[in-house]
Amino acid sequence: MTYRAPINDMLLALNHGAGLNAAVIAGHYGDYDSEITAAVLEEAGRFASDVLAPLNRVGDEHGIKLAHSKVTTAPGWPDAYQRWIAAGWNAVSGDEAFGGQGLPLALNAACTEIWAASNVAFGLCPLLTLSAIEALDAHGSKALKKIYLEKLVSGEWPGTMQLTEPQAGSDVGALRARAERYGDGSYRIIGSKIFITYGDHDMTDNIVHFVLARLPDAPAGTKGISLFLIPKFLVNADGSLGERNDIYPTGIEHKLGMHAAPTCTMTIGENGGAVGYLVGEENRGMQCMFTMMNQARLAVGLEGVGIADRAYQQALAFAQDRKQGRAIGEKPSKSDPIIVHPDVKRMLLQMRAMTAAARTICYATAVSIDIANRADDPAIKAAAATRAALLTPIAKAYATDIGNEVASLGVQVHGGMGFIEETGAAQHFRDARITPIYEGTNGIQAIDLVTRKLAPNGGEAVWTLLAELSATVDDVEASNDPAFGSTGEKLREALAALERASKWLLERVVSAPNDALAGATPYLRLFGATLGGCVLAREALAARDIDGLGDTQRYVTLARFFAENITVQATALERTVTEGFGAVGGADAVLLA
Amino acid sequence: MTYRAPINDMLLALNHGAGLNAAVIAGHYGDYDSEITAAVLEEAGRFASDVLAPLNRVGDEHGIKLAHSKVTTAPGWPDAYQRWIAAGWNAVSGDEAFGGQGLPLALNAACTEIWAASNVAFGLCPLLTLSAIEALDAHGSKALKKIYLEKLVSGEWPGTMQLTEPQAGSDVGALRARAERYGDGSYRIIGSKIFITYGDHDMTDNIVHFVLARLPDAPAGTKGISLFLIPKFLVNADGSLGERNDIYPTGIEHKLGMHAAPTCTMTIGENGGAVGYLVGEENRGMQCMFTMMNQARLAVGLEGVGIADRAYQQALAFAQDRKQGRAIGEKPSKSDPIIVHPDVKRMLLQMRAMTAAARTICYATAVSIDIANRADDPAIKAAAATRAALLTPIAKAYATDIGNEVASLGVQVHGGMGFIEETGAAQHFRDARITPIYEGTNGIQAIDLVTRKLAPNGGEAVWTLLAELSATVDDVEASNDPAFGSTGEKLREALAALERASKWLLERVVSAPNDALAGATPYLRLFGATLGGCVLAREALAARDIDGLGDTQRYVTLARFFAENITVQATALERTVTEGFGAVGGADAVLLA
Repeated sequence: MTYRAPINDMLLALNHGAGLNAAVIAGHYGDYDSEITAAVLEEAGRFASDVLAPLNRVGDEHGIKLAHSKVTTAPGWPDAYQRWIAAGWNAVSGDEAFGGQGLPLALNAACTEIWAASNVAFGLCPLLTLSAIEALDAHGSKALKKIYLEKLVSGEWPGTMQLTEPQAGSDVGALRARAERYGDGSYRIIGSKIFITYGDHDMTDNIVHFVLARLPDAPAGTKGISLFLIPKFLVNADGSLGERNDIYPTGIEHKLGMHAAPTCTMTIGENGGAVGYLVGEENRGMQCMFTMMNQARLAVGLEGVGIADRAYQQALAFAQDRKQGRAIGEKPSKSDPIIVHPDVKRMLLQMRAMTAAARTICYATAVSIDIANRADDPAIKAAAATRAALLTPIAKAYATDIGNEVASLGVQVHGGMGFIEETGAAQHFRDARITPIYEGTNGIQAIDLVTRKLAPNGGEAVWTLLAELSATVDDVEASNDPAFGSTGEKLREALAALERASKWLLERVVSAPNDALAGATPYLRLFGATLGGCVLAREALAARDIDGLGDTQRYVTLARFFAENITVQATALERTVTEGFGAVGGADAVLLA
Repeated sequence: MTYRAPINDMLLALNHGAGLNAAVIAGHYGDYDSEITAAVLEEAGRFASDVLAPLNRVGDEHGIKLAHSKVTTAPGWPDAYQRWIAAGWNAVSGDEAFGGQGLPLALNAACTEIWAASNVAFGLCPLLTLSAIEALDAHGSKALKKIYLEKLVSGEWPGTMQLTEPQAGSDVGALRARAERYGDGSYRIIGSKIFITYGDHDMTDNIVHFVLARLPDAPAGTKGISLFLIPKFLVNADGSLGERNDIYPTGIEHKLGMHAAPTCTMTIGENGGAVGYLVGEENRGMQCMFTMMNQARLAVGLEGVGIADRAYQQALAFAQDRKQGRAIGEKPSKSDPIIVHPDVKRMLLQMRAMTAAARTICYATAVSIDIANRADDPAIKAAAATRAALLTPIAKAYATDIGNEVASLGVQVHGGMGFIEETGAAQHFRDARITPIYEGTNGIQAIDLVTRKLAPNGGEAVWTLLAELSATVDDVEASNDPAFGSTGEKLREALAALERASKWLLERVVSAPNDALAGATPYLRLFGATLGGCVLAREALAARDIDGLGDTQRYVTLARFFAENITVQATALERTVTEGFGAVGGADAVLLA
């Protein structure tokens, strides 16, 4: 079955759960016309259903090939990519000065979910290009931008991010690729990189590689890393393509999932050095990289949401179609679709509720980034930047964790059919598995949340958010809608648990950092379960005032399901944070015995 | 890396956590010499490390082939199977009257874990044979047993179980394969089956198929199903192999995992009917099947444990070896193995603690089955049978759920390497995914737990178990060992939560069965988290009195980790059972909008 973008749910999440409407009304988006949002999402949904979704399984089955230092993608992929560029999808939120459409990043975030849902391996290519654009835009020289930025924005030349080396994964500072200054202001780069996504392919004429390397006189560690732009083909003064640059794919990985997205070993400069151009200042490459990584982290969170939604749609269709057994009270002579069983309903609700919560968390991150970039008032900009920084690790880790859980439930709903590759449920399960790993493992996101997002200014970023969430809970309680069940109570409890856990961590992150870090992962989970419950409740309240949604009580039921079945874990997660570290401290005796 | 059976942990779990020692002392195992346990496990571990583990990846990569109605297994597999038979591993717990060694089922359960850990796809073949043996032993005629039982016990002829048809998966009663009476007392079977594990292969001369089919005059549904034995090759009066019988593999599935284990579509009787022999009485096939399924369910639980332990061992080795980043307080110039990070320690402890808890739950199920089979006192037999029946769905579902979670954590510990197939972590993740599905989905196990195991006699089976677990908690508290942290408190809370949830379900399963069934899955999870915490605490207390285990405080730390990080979820799970059903009742409005 194909994928249909859930436009109503996306609009509700974007406009109301994530606060796009309020930000537009407050003037942070200038004269942005909110009508555009729905129109773009409808169009994106159509492109996804028509062009991308049908290639998802083809890509998984066919995979990619490496021969003669060239990567070939699956049948139909180069053509789809050209249609992608032509339709302008690469440029949705790109800078208008470089041919972009200048639309909100939040709108592009919703599109990113659509690309991931329809074909996550395809969407990975533009996802990396967006990061490259961000880094070049923020740190590149005028001259570099002039040559490369428009091509990157249009997608005509996609970008890659090249950090990882065998000894340098999460520990980027350990990298060894080297760069030498060349007389003409350019550099020559020599080294090798692994796990380079779309490091080479046949979908475009040129590729713009962004590569981290060290200058000869650079200090050790992360303070001695510089960022270089290395085009696959050099670009002549007139903009035409010149010589092949000395950067080649020399290996491809055989992966669990994302079969259609090449993961390359790149050999750089073996024939005299690759021509590279410095982006930003020498030895300041990590700063540039951080610029790239934040948006990439959000985008990976959106991959989690997209895969989850696709897995949900497929499982739902199967459960409505597959006849097996009978509902309680029905005659044994007839077979009912398995969706009549409460256990199946629970699985499907869990899939949908988790997906909806993660969706809004990701969209809210994007809206915060937009406000930080677009608002006039410096105080509002700063507050939004703080909010975006706080939400980014939660968006990345929570959404990818639930992406995996939802994909696994999708397999389970299918029963034995789920284990058969032809069914397609297994592909989602395989594809999703990389998302908690790349762009910073979810463990690293959790540590980032505790040490860099919670800790500064006495936890101010968290307290500000909790106060907002508390106001939502007030609204739930004030609604007196019995269909909410105990939603208000569950959210209130969770907010209290999150506050206590935050205070405990604030103290321990200084006095006993290892104890604090032992609880980082359950803390992030607690944060996601609390925030997710609150945003779904907010959407349920908002839905009542929206025309055309039919019976909006369904959003109340969804919020209630999340609160009573997922947010309810908050107190246990709090205790895992504040008590569970004890045994972790004694881990060595257990693990190394 | 290879697999090493964790003999000390297994012995502690078997003898103390699962109560084998106490049962031996009570005389339920006759003159069984407890020394045998360790000797057999050591030997099994050696066979697994030397013969089976090296073929695990070969099997995954090579898969199986079907050509000319014959299935070919991966290189080395037929030879390994012959060594398996020759070493007597198929016959560990087999009846001595038919060439078996008559050892405890509990000992064989521990061996089953070892086979699954070293090579789960290989172990699946004998696992199904054991079920076949059980059904034939309990229900087969003397004549059938004489011809087939010894061959099945030795493994010379493995068995298959053939239930599933396209329209009849979990709903066995919907099957259509038909059987006709033949003049000589035999039957002719015609039909087709899907998802038949090891439905054909080249590891042995003959295969003994156990097939469910309907007689022409059979009542509809499950009451009209009969069980037939259909040999791949007919057997002559002198025991030699005769004609090829009319049962053939006509398709194989392309699966997410378990690549080396053929999953066949079987075409039966297309050339005049397959010769079959009735097992048990006509129309009583479901009873025979239930006999087979219970032991198979436990065995699948043990697959979950085995895969989890393999994934844990591999992740632990990686975390000790992989250098990346630094521990807090260390100089930036040096790299530490990632196991220094508290978040990695947490993942590894979680893997180990979940595996250990699930192991003991499975072994305890096996000990109960042994006592039910072996004890002299009818009251003790009956009580043990009730216990085994209660524990079976928990053993199957909890162990396979954690098997998946542990395998996923194993991938996560590996970071980017985990997504690369060569690393091997991904295979465990793929292989594990079928275990919550086959032999009755985990949803079905949860429903079985609530409706057939909790409900009878006012919940007596559960109350009896809770009283025993409570005594363990008394012992934890009486130990006054500060290393237990808040283990006693957490277990006490969990027992209370489990009791309340059980009472609530007992009432609702009658008054509002759909509400009760909506909570079946979280109830099973609550049961596993509570029981798992208690058995690990019991083992930690017992370990102190055992020589040769070194510093036994590590078992206290492991029990503490489980109680404070996993059992702590009990109250939330209770509330999911007793409150979460509300939104599930309104699911249709959400899902079908």
